[in-house]
Amino acid sequence: MLTDHFFRNLLECPGASPRAQETNQTENTMDFRSIAARSSAIDSATGRLAAFVVEATPEVLPEAVRKEAARTFLNWVGCAVGGSRHETVDIALATVGPFSGPAEASVLGRSERLDPLHAALINGISSHVFDFDDTHLRTVIHPGGPVVSALLAFAEHRKVRGPDFVNALVLGVEVECRIGNAVFPEHYDIGWHITGTAGVFGAAAAVGKLLKLDAERMTWALGIAASQPVGLREMFGSMTKSFHPGRAAQNGMTAALLAGNGFTSSMRALEAKSGWLNVLSTRHNLGEITEGFGAHYEILSNSYKPFACGIVIHPTIDACVQLRNQNKMDVASICSVALKVHPLVLELTGKTEPQTGLEGKFSVFHAAAIALIEGDGGERQFSDRAVRDPAVIDLRRRVQATIDPTLAPDDASVTLTLSDGRVLEKRIGHAIGSLARPMSDADLEKKFTGFAEAYLGAAGTRRLLDLCWRVGTLDDVAAVAEAARA
Amino acid sequence: MLTDHFFRNLLECPGASPRAQETNQTENTMDFRSIAARSSAIDSATGRLAAFVVEATPEVLPEAVRKEAARTFLNWVGCAVGGSRHETVDIALATVGPFSGPAEASVLGRSERLDPLHAALINGISSHVFDFDDTHLRTVIHPGGPVVSALLAFAEHRKVRGPDFVNALVLGVEVECRIGNAVFPEHYDIGWHITGTAGVFGAAAAVGKLLKLDAERMTWALGIAASQPVGLREMFGSMTKSFHPGRAAQNGMTAALLAGNGFTSSMRALEAKSGWLNVLSTRHNLGEITEGFGAHYEILSNSYKPFACGIVIHPTIDACVQLRNQNKMDVASICSVALKVHPLVLELTGKTEPQTGLEGKFSVFHAAAIALIEGDGGERQFSDRAVRDPAVIDLRRRVQATIDPTLAPDDASVTLTLSDGRVLEKRIGHAIGSLARPMSDADLEKKFTGFAEAYLGAAGTRRLLDLCWRVGTLDDVAAVAEAARA
Repeated sequence: MLTDHFFRNLLECPGASPRAQETNQTENTMDFRSIAARSSAIDSATGRLAAFVVEATPEVLPEAVRKEAARTFLNWVGCAVGGSRHETVDIALATVGPFSGPAEASVLGRSERLDPLHAALINGISSHVFDFDDTHLRTVIHPGGPVVSALLAFAEHRKVRGPDFVNALVLGVEVECRIGNAVFPEHYDIGWHITGTAGVFGAAAAVGKLLKLDAERMTWALGIAASQPVGLREMFGSMTKSFHPGRAAQNGMTAALLAGNGFTSSMRALEAKSGWLNVLSTRHNLGEITEGFGAHYEILSNSYKPFACGIVIHPTIDACVQLRNQNKMDVASICSVALKVHPLVLELTGKTEPQTGLEGKFSVFHAAAIALIEGDGGERQFSDRAVRDPAVIDLRRRVQATIDPTLAPDDASVTLTLSDGRVLEKRIGHAIGSLARPMSDADLEKKFTGFAEAYLGAAGTRRLLDLCWRVGTLDDVAAVAEAARA
Repeated sequence: MLTDHFFRNLLECPGASPRAQETNQTENTMDFRSIAARSSAIDSATGRLAAFVVEATPEVLPEAVRKEAARTFLNWVGCAVGGSRHETVDIALATVGPFSGPAEASVLGRSERLDPLHAALINGISSHVFDFDDTHLRTVIHPGGPVVSALLAFAEHRKVRGPDFVNALVLGVEVECRIGNAVFPEHYDIGWHITGTAGVFGAAAAVGKLLKLDAERMTWALGIAASQPVGLREMFGSMTKSFHPGRAAQNGMTAALLAGNGFTSSMRALEAKSGWLNVLSTRHNLGEITEGFGAHYEILSNSYKPFACGIVIHPTIDACVQLRNQNKMDVASICSVALKVHPLVLELTGKTEPQTGLEGKFSVFHAAAIALIEGDGGERQFSDRAVRDPAVIDLRRRVQATIDPTLAPDDASVTLTLSDGRVLEKRIGHAIGSLARPMSDADLEKKFTGFAEAYLGAAGTRRLLDLCWRVGTLDDVAAVAEAARA
């Protein structure tokens, strides 16, 4: 599969996972080895995964893992606030609002409150609606949507301390990504939207951890989650796509709450003959789920999009933004823009005359033009206005793209010919946002601010940003949700 | 597959589907032919199914179909009331109750009220928890659980007239069973609990019909349903099994409500490459979904269990009950009970020394003994008490079973040898409850009364029974739900 190849390539690029190395030497690895030794005695893969979640304590988390959890959290909060006024969210909220229970939990970026199950649904939709959220590149899972949507809403239902919240977040991401690793790419290629199918487990494990479920009940929670996968890829391009992470969050929280009250399920929901792995995939590798607990953390492979469009255009935008910022030029003086791109770019984003903002996300020509003009590739650069702007259209028509099969998928080159005779060229090794060149904390803050300021104001945005960075030390994480209300 | 063979055999037995014949000659068939002609012009199987649902009016329903809808409804109400005090329901209700919205809808058989989405969930669990609900034998779908749970709860949210309710019920059953027909047995053999996976579509279509969705929005409702399948067969034997029809009802209602407010989805959710049929089955027959609208009705193939256990034991219980009722005898005088049964009976229900009521359901030996002693095979006959009763154990140990591969699956023979020298024999052609020998209205009333009287009293039960039979002419169907509250 071309897509599989694309993502594998991204992962295999040299130095792709520098952060993942750090934890191998952590002083706390031994704690997990002893947990692993004990849990491997449990005669069920599902049970072993559950036992790991039950026994993992916040104290053993390496510093790099805590830091990445804060980055994942901050990025998710920003995306959820940013997406909160989208029509998709308006409709979903108008639909489920009248059925909401006690209004304990915040809808981020808005003034409404809902019961925590419905808040998890709506915030999960908001966080994904711009397709701008985090990505676990190996599996294409967006880990934050299911896990953080459930956790934050739950933290408004029962008081949750920062260290417990971060631990649950790390574990939820670990569970969903391990299960994703076990079945990718076959499960995705069949047609499942893996964020919604694996995400239910992540939400169940994370909320189950906060509920302090014992190993049996945690196993049941995973079982109840297994029976509620969400999402077919056929829904891509419709509002139902962003419904998937939201519903996964809601289903996972429901599973944990039910199991916590003694609602029984299978003890072998993952690996049984009629279990999730066999039913929802044509192949699986159980070792991905049950081996190496604590020796590596999936959250260290999480990545954050700098631009509000498919990841294949990111190198081109990156190059255009750099050319614009590093050279003095009037865009009217650009005679031609020559792109060299990976083959997948024109296959997925070859639209030459986009008519709407959404179509603009599938046009590398629009993306290059708007990045040269505005120096960014955020949601505003993919609005209907931007796509229909005569100056943008004019420059867009001077963009030409050729395929270069020797380029890596996070690589591109852009050559500008100016009317004064200058020829400017930029070659991108690894695009910003890839694992090899991750978004810096400052990049994440800029993205966050771009999302939040319109709804929360400058002071409110700074306050929320500060709370997000400090999530791991807060006495009550509900403060973040409160601060994210408009 | 042995199970597949079993169910096909049941369907193919001579005269198995007498009710299905009646509608071929109905005077109203022409209306559906014109709908079918128009809808076949729609370039999507999902769209054609949606268009059929949108255009079908109550007036064209043949009398036999209306009657079967009332029987399906009555049987479902009885099962839901009967199961309402099960521990599974207690836990589910205690879990979701605190998150319920406005308490508009009844929990049948109890005093609690919930918002309609949660009421659909809980009533769907109650109706399935005894495994005593209706069965569409060709697909093993329990049609009432997802569809009626959603419809009745919705009827307490917005006023619904009887004719519209019955029409929506018939259409919901039609949709889920047609989709089931298209993928059975492969979909079931993979490991999906088809009641929860196909059932979501039935609930979405039924509630969508009451919402008067147009064809586009009905297609979206089916799309949102497609992304929310519920249920793996691995959960059988745990509380999560009965969660499946309830959650399917809740998901389907959610899908219809969202689509009704303009929440977009795929227009080809069933047949697309990454659509439900391709993702959740290894084979499908689209014609089962899109051909012959109105020429036959799936609800006419619905069946109702006379006994609270797996369908394979039913012929044996039927024979034992008849022997007991037709002959004067003291059970102490029974020297031996010789059963001849279909091979599947000992494979599935060969437990010789059951210790609990649930295990008793998997023991043809217990079933025969208790049926001879008490003359029935209801939920009470599969209680822990019944299974541990010394008199029952004593007789059970005198029961012997031999396999007879020449027997049809709904056939069995029982031979009693008495201490006075008599030998009594009963051979069952088609067991009570099969399509060839359906439960009579009186049988359904007896089953209903056995379920309801303990919670609603004799007068309340008679009143509820009367409302169920008259469902198609009620001015407001919510009256049934009100009457079913304890």
